[in-house]
Amino acid sequence: MAHQNVITIGTGNIGVEFMAQVAEKDAPHLGRHPNPTNIVGMVNSNGWLYTPGGVAIQNSPSMVRDLQSQDRELVSQGRQRVAIKDWMRSQQEYMDGGNLLELFEEIRRQGLVDDVVFVDLTANDLTSFHQRVIDSGGKIVTANKIPVAQSSWDIFKLLTQFRRRYGFSCSVMAGAGAVPFLRDAFDTSDTVKSIEGCFSGTLGKLCNLLYEGEITFSEAVKQLKLGGDTEPDPRDDLSGMDVAKKIVILARTAGYHVDLKGVAIEPFVPDGFRELSNCSVDEFMARASIFDKEIAGKFESAKKQGKTLRYVASLKIEDDKPIVTLGLREENLDSPLGSLKGNGNKIVVYTSAYSQVPYELSAPGSGTHITAGNVRRDLLQLLQNREM
Amino acid sequence: MAHQNVITIGTGNIGVEFMAQVAEKDAPHLGRHPNPTNIVGMVNSNGWLYTPGGVAIQNSPSMVRDLQSQDRELVSQGRQRVAIKDWMRSQQEYMDGGNLLELFEEIRRQGLVDDVVFVDLTANDLTSFHQRVIDSGGKIVTANKIPVAQSSWDIFKLLTQFRRRYGFSCSVMAGAGAVPFLRDAFDTSDTVKSIEGCFSGTLGKLCNLLYEGEITFSEAVKQLKLGGDTEPDPRDDLSGMDVAKKIVILARTAGYHVDLKGVAIEPFVPDGFRELSNCSVDEFMARASIFDKEIAGKFESAKKQGKTLRYVASLKIEDDKPIVTLGLREENLDSPLGSLKGNGNKIVVYTSAYSQVPYELSAPGSGTHITAGNVRRDLLQLLQNREM
Repeated sequence: MAHQNVITIGTGNIGVEFMAQVAEKDAPHLGRHPNPTNIVGMVNSNGWLYTPGGVAIQNSPSMVRDLQSQDRELVSQGRQRVAIKDWMRSQQEYMDGGNLLELFEEIRRQGLVDDVVFVDLTANDLTSFHQRVIDSGGKIVTANKIPVAQSSWDIFKLLTQFRRRYGFSCSVMAGAGAVPFLRDAFDTSDTVKSIEGCFSGTLGKLCNLLYEGEITFSEAVKQLKLGGDTEPDPRDDLSGMDVAKKIVILARTAGYHVDLKGVAIEPFVPDGFRELSNCSVDEFMARASIFDKEIAGKFESAKKQGKTLRYVASLKIEDDKPIVTLGLREENLDSPLGSLKGNGNKIVVYTSAYSQVPYELSAPGSGTHITAGNVRRDLLQLLQNREM
Repeated sequence: MAHQNVITIGTGNIGVEFMAQVAEKDAPHLGRHPNPTNIVGMVNSNGWLYTPGGVAIQNSPSMVRDLQSQDRELVSQGRQRVAIKDWMRSQQEYMDGGNLLELFEEIRRQGLVDDVVFVDLTANDLTSFHQRVIDSGGKIVTANKIPVAQSSWDIFKLLTQFRRRYGFSCSVMAGAGAVPFLRDAFDTSDTVKSIEGCFSGTLGKLCNLLYEGEITFSEAVKQLKLGGDTEPDPRDDLSGMDVAKKIVILARTAGYHVDLKGVAIEPFVPDGFRELSNCSVDEFMARASIFDKEIAGKFESAKKQGKTLRYVASLKIEDDKPIVTLGLREENLDSPLGSLKGNGNKIVVYTSAYSQVPYELSAPGSGTHITAGNVRRDLLQLLQNREM
């Protein structure tokens, strides 16, 4: 039985859900899995816990689920999640105030770098930590986009060059398989000709609401925000920046040198959006109706031609150069992107091999449960002896 | 630089295309790839060629392409492909009349089982050979469905239990990724709830022709046969047997004990089809028009309700038991399967994790170029040191 020793970074939604899934399905004591995931450490911004034998909590799924629901309850009251943090602190091996690098050096001293996978479930800029781990021969799985999307091209190549040491599938489409497809295409010299996709469940849902035409743009945004479908600041969705990061990751994975600053990003509402970038969230929400008419007009005009609008990210190769663009685009209702329902995400790829009929993949683009599950999927690829 | 030593089995369309792609993109002498594929042996029904240093032909893409087009020319004249076979025979290391098992024992004697991957590009029943290789700790990649679809459940489990020793992605959807998705789902205990799909490009194309309504069933089959879109005997497509093998492979991969004989197969034209199973191909083609009225009626009736027909394979779980069915089914035009164009294939999977929005993958289901390319993809997964 080959263990996969894991140190989780981050105790937010995905971090705790990952922990709960391991406890329920993958923990060594269950004896259910020939390659169980043994969580030997947990890190958050306050300190860390490290137990080479495996943290006790993974032996009790009910305890993890209980801490998870306590945290959810706190968050719903607008308070800070502390249940899982308090549990960490209660452990003898807890290192208050210790940081990630310190834990890594401890593991290096013990000669265990080879035996551990760091799982980054944060949204912090941990690029230099990722570099440190990969430079030292270690392994990482990341659901965090920053180190792969916002780093330089050289750092991206450094991090991702070892297929069995760096897993970043979960940075796009919640881990549905777009990254592995493009990675393998690169490795088999199957040149990517174009990528097109919808990579924001929030903007997809917004488009579907606006197509129905019974609600204004500002009302729709308000409704999605109330339902928890947007970021706390909906401008983070509407700016297109999150989608831009995803298409940069995909283009880079396909072997194209692309940087975020070279991407032509058209926000969901291009005119006047940037002027509202510095006000408070409340002020933005109050003023969002200034876009209602423009947006309604676009959807009406598309509808008249039997089309709808989608927020599309695209990579095209022109004169051997990668061109990445993002913006609201008209799509036929029965086209691959136009037919998307709800908050579904989709990628359509043409390569040298997939030149007539493209490779198309659609799946939910977010969801704590799915992302955590696909982090566990990505871990499988890093397992030395992957047996059933 | 880690080589992937490969012995190809079969010198048909896919065998030669695989050889050509390696010569153009992956061969060690190109120095282009850090994990080049080194073809050390080639096997066909007449004998084998084995050169631990790598067969000479892989250093000359133009020579492979030349032999490939000579073979194609011969086939178009209704003759046997001999160009690549003649080249094999011309080599000093060629073993006339030697068989596969003999070659394998030779490799075992040399202690090289660990260093070689057998690539099965035939459509022969090589199940016992696959067993022999896996039992001995060896590695196989197969585009051949027989060993995974028609073997017993125990043999299926034996062959596929080692994730890094047995690659069978190319047995379904030409290697587009349905098998890896289900394999990982099983390994992360993400229970598959249902699978639905269209896995025959030929039947998909037939449905699209018949939906248009300007051609009868028998004429459409004739047209597809002339265009090379059907098997030499179109009954092999129409019987549903090929699709049945694919859904059996997928169900088994998801962890369900399913056998071909337990599948409720409804042929494309259920009534009277079996009565025509023993006549000659010519006689079948001459008598196929007896189905025209029935089939036209079905498509007309679907069309009246705004639907089309698809030949759908499905796995459902009822009372914890896997139920596999195949047959012609009405689908809304904008549904995942109803919207398929041309000869595209598609799979729609619901799992415990993908419970609201399914995982959907569509891609061409056949094509020598694509299948050979995806065999190269599958080889990557077996590579011990997979680095860029």
